[in-house]
Amino acid sequence: MNINEIIKTKRDQKELTTEQIDFFVREYSLGNIPDYQASSLLMAIYLNGMSEKEIYDLTVAMTASGEIVDLSQIEGIKVDKHSTGGIGDKVTMVVMPLVASCGVPVAKMSGRGLGYTQGTIDKLDSIPNFRTDIEMDEFIRNVKRIGIALMGQSEKVALADKKLYALRDVTATVESIPLIASSIMSKKLAAGCDKILLEVTCGSGAFMEDEVRARVLARTMVDIGRKARKETIAVLTNMNQPLGKYAGNALEVKEAIETLKGNGEPDVVRVCLVLGAYMLKLAGVDDNIPNNIKLLQSKIDNGEGLEKFKELISRQWGDSRVIDDPEMLPKAKYRIPLNSLEAGYIAGFDAKVIGQAVVNLGGGRLKKEDSIDYAVGIETVKKIGDEIKEGEPILYIHANTETQGLLQIETLRSSIKISKEPVEKAKEILDIIE
Amino acid sequence: MNINEIIKTKRDQKELTTEQIDFFVREYSLGNIPDYQASSLLMAIYLNGMSEKEIYDLTVAMTASGEIVDLSQIEGIKVDKHSTGGIGDKVTMVVMPLVASCGVPVAKMSGRGLGYTQGTIDKLDSIPNFRTDIEMDEFIRNVKRIGIALMGQSEKVALADKKLYALRDVTATVESIPLIASSIMSKKLAAGCDKILLEVTCGSGAFMEDEVRARVLARTMVDIGRKARKETIAVLTNMNQPLGKYAGNALEVKEAIETLKGNGEPDVVRVCLVLGAYMLKLAGVDDNIPNNIKLLQSKIDNGEGLEKFKELISRQWGDSRVIDDPEMLPKAKYRIPLNSLEAGYIAGFDAKVIGQAVVNLGGGRLKKEDSIDYAVGIETVKKIGDEIKEGEPILYIHANTETQGLLQIETLRSSIKISKEPVEKAKEILDIIE
Repeated sequence: MNINEIIKTKRDQKELTTEQIDFFVREYSLGNIPDYQASSLLMAIYLNGMSEKEIYDLTVAMTASGEIVDLSQIEGIKVDKHSTGGIGDKVTMVVMPLVASCGVPVAKMSGRGLGYTQGTIDKLDSIPNFRTDIEMDEFIRNVKRIGIALMGQSEKVALADKKLYALRDVTATVESIPLIASSIMSKKLAAGCDKILLEVTCGSGAFMEDEVRARVLARTMVDIGRKARKETIAVLTNMNQPLGKYAGNALEVKEAIETLKGNGEPDVVRVCLVLGAYMLKLAGVDDNIPNNIKLLQSKIDNGEGLEKFKELISRQWGDSRVIDDPEMLPKAKYRIPLNSLEAGYIAGFDAKVIGQAVVNLGGGRLKKEDSIDYAVGIETVKKIGDEIKEGEPILYIHANTETQGLLQIETLRSSIKISKEPVEKAKEILDIIE
Repeated sequence: MNINEIIKTKRDQKELTTEQIDFFVREYSLGNIPDYQASSLLMAIYLNGMSEKEIYDLTVAMTASGEIVDLSQIEGIKVDKHSTGGIGDKVTMVVMPLVASCGVPVAKMSGRGLGYTQGTIDKLDSIPNFRTDIEMDEFIRNVKRIGIALMGQSEKVALADKKLYALRDVTATVESIPLIASSIMSKKLAAGCDKILLEVTCGSGAFMEDEVRARVLARTMVDIGRKARKETIAVLTNMNQPLGKYAGNALEVKEAIETLKGNGEPDVVRVCLVLGAYMLKLAGVDDNIPNNIKLLQSKIDNGEGLEKFKELISRQWGDSRVIDDPEMLPKAKYRIPLNSLEAGYIAGFDAKVIGQAVVNLGGGRLKKEDSIDYAVGIETVKKIGDEIKEGEPILYIHANTETQGLLQIETLRSSIKISKEPVEKAKEILDIIE
């Protein structure tokens, strides 16, 4: 078998065999296939696509290229949750404690942020002393003890995917559905859970701007999950504006706490309840989604969800007093309003620009090594469909230097569309794909 | 400008600007763009193609990346000749002296062989003491003095093309018409001639097996030539069987000498006269092709073509006694017949297999550094359409070890098709594209 023949096969729109895909992933991981041959194959995959079988084979080969997490010591059905990323996405911090408070074991491995989206791990790092770099045995012990634990995903999971992703990033081959689906699912299959709940975001703040493509991605991943005998459901959500009020690490922790206290923004609550309800369905609690939503809502109302979050924080060495006093979280020095220049209705955001503004303020990473300012972020007070008067603030910039804050105004302003005519509110949940 | 944007442009089927192509070729030549980004772009070009304008821009950028030969000291219209390669292609050695004997200056730079085709330079190297590694001033002096000179093409011509070709070779991106056309023409535009005659071969022994693709390649190159104000004509020739009787370095020199003596195989004579006639047309001798063919035939009949070849050999330090005594050329120890197992008519050859057999015998290169056994080769005594009896030889293998020779028999035999029904002879010239 040789790589040139493999490239030719894909180039000529023929199906790669399981052996060819295994060979490529293994030999590329080992450094026996140079980057310039891999990138040629990646572009051929980008342009010619992959069959369902090829996508599955690629996923399995990438899963096998790294560590496989063993969660078998934890009893019960473990459900993983993954989001393709969004702006202001504090869902994990709300849903995980809620689901755990329903008695479903939550063993969640998360990633760090890169680019315009921030990762859950980074967000939680803004809680004083909270540790996400715990060892696997502590992680498993915690789930067994309090029903929930959260840690950073091991660098050793799906090693081939890491190497390939870095190459895709510099060869214009990121936005390929077969490559995205196999990349995400290879890590999920390696993470040791029994079932998988995916949030596939679409819109201006998501990886997939186009709804049709987001649907195809969701369907592709659900199929991979089924083939791998890990039942998978995908919830398609709207990411045409930031979710909830805040984008930025500590600001989102604060909003998650408020949501668990019952003071959540309607869009955050809705997304969390629906995602949680499907997780409960996967975990075998109840097939009836409205019942599950009711159950989860009751865990907000009776404070058990909040209590579980507090337990998680304490257990992982964090200062759980933040639950009662969110003012303990890092706080930015400046809160600069961005006022509307005209009256009308908010018609749309370029949500990526808001994510990018958080990064520009110091709240995200451009390179893996960058450090993060947890305090900064964007507070969106008007959402799509809201009426706005001239001079009224649409959002606030939380910045640690005034200059940094002021520098964001122009791009942020140009990313907001205002209409003279009334505009419908945005729907949060677009579809369920199972 | 950045390479990622350039890759994306081509990936998304948009046209690259002249500036983008210049940037890519220049920065890749300088080593500022890594191979893995270049190969991703090459695969996108392979799969999405290039517009006429892009192909021209790529050609010009590659021409500019290396040395440009200046032949302005030589008076008259200099016509370059290039073949896309074939098996047993001794045409240059026949046509060049014939054209020179008509008073047209011949300043020919040739390449070495790689893979299953052999280069003119290698063939001439089988003449004792003949030197093709002469300096440019000697080359020009020779053309001015005797009207003909031949040298190896400088390694410094079209530098970007060299680097890109090496990359295409290992990334399954060789067989792309825009990339082939720009590669060939970038070297031709740099070679300093005023006009260009292309032989575009097609069939089982050619780079382009398919006639339709060969036509597109020819048309593409003729268009590049016109845009660059170097009038170009392409002759489409059939390479479904080796040209003439011999394939192999010294054997082809011997056949070229025999052809100039008037003892040529009909197919060799026909191809040489037609190619030569179009060169004379380009050189402004006569627009009438039959007249030019007659003139060239007279140069065979009166021995002036042979005399010119002899002059060329002497001038470039070679032993010109080979003209009168071709037995001085290297000669293989064994001449092993491949006899037909059945009676019938020769219906076809896989000519590439014959080229490959020459390489296997030691007569070609797999790597640039390989040395060559000039003596070995294949002698084809039956051609397409010829009747054959059982036990009669179809070809002879000229080998320097008996084992090497015998080892070729099986593959060679499987590459020959024999029909029970009579088969038409093959046409040599398929079309003229101008």
